[in-house]
Amino acid sequence: MIKTVSVADKMALIGSYWQPRIVGAVNDCYVKVARLKGSFIWHHHETEDEMFLVVKGNLIIKLRDGEIQVGEGEFVIIPRGVEHLPVAEDEVQVLLLEPKTTINTGNVIGEKTVDDQWL
Amino acid sequence: MIKTVSVADKMALIGSYWQPRIVGAVNDCYVKVARLKGSFIWHHHETEDEMFLVVKGNLIIKLRDGEIQVGEGEFVIIPRGVEHLPVAEDEVQVLLLEPKTTINTGNVIGEKTVDDQWL
Repeated sequence: MIKTVSVADKMALIGSYWQPRIVGAVNDCYVKVARLKGSFIWHHHETEDEMFLVVKGNLIIKLRDGEIQVGEGEFVIIPRGVEHLPVAEDEVQVLLLEPKTTINTGNVIGEKTVDDQWL
Repeated sequence: MIKTVSVADKMALIGSYWQPRIVGAVNDCYVKVARLKGSFIWHHHETEDEMFLVVKGNLIIKLRDGEIQVGEGEFVIIPRGVEHLPVAEDEVQVLLLEPKTTINTGNVIGEKTVDDQWL
């Protein structure tokens, strides 16, 4: 069944921050939506690049040698292996694009790690 | 070099309709931007799923058994093998996500086929 998906409608279904949910699959990649607020944790993804497309708000991604600001309608791709710390001072809504093997906390498995769940 | 990309800024650089340009790579997938107006051609992609995220306007994707409407802030994923005909009555701006192997005209190589080009 091919159907149109509203990003805003999916965002409205998300109950918790920092819990990406799958909304689509394109071959080996998942498309996910997430709501972010506060600071996440430093981590990297060993073999996966990760795209953050900001739908609402202003995202900061701290790197070990600086930081990147990503506003509404902008995206950034964090290459595999690069340590990063996403920070959302106010709520940020993002569309994520990443390989299906990607774990949200990358190399740091712990209480913030979430399982794959379709929304 | 990791940098923020503005989707609107990239769109403004596109000079022709129906000529997707690459703006990012996430492992085996490309992220592309395209401006669409009028009707494209019927085609399918043998092995690639294709995501259309509408940034501006209203996209119609005709299928052999119906059609799909995709408005601003909405997306649709056309699975591999499914014949489709994108139609934009007025200008539509889309962000595309598809495997790097994807050819814009799929199985129909011809004058509308474009090579991979970064923007």
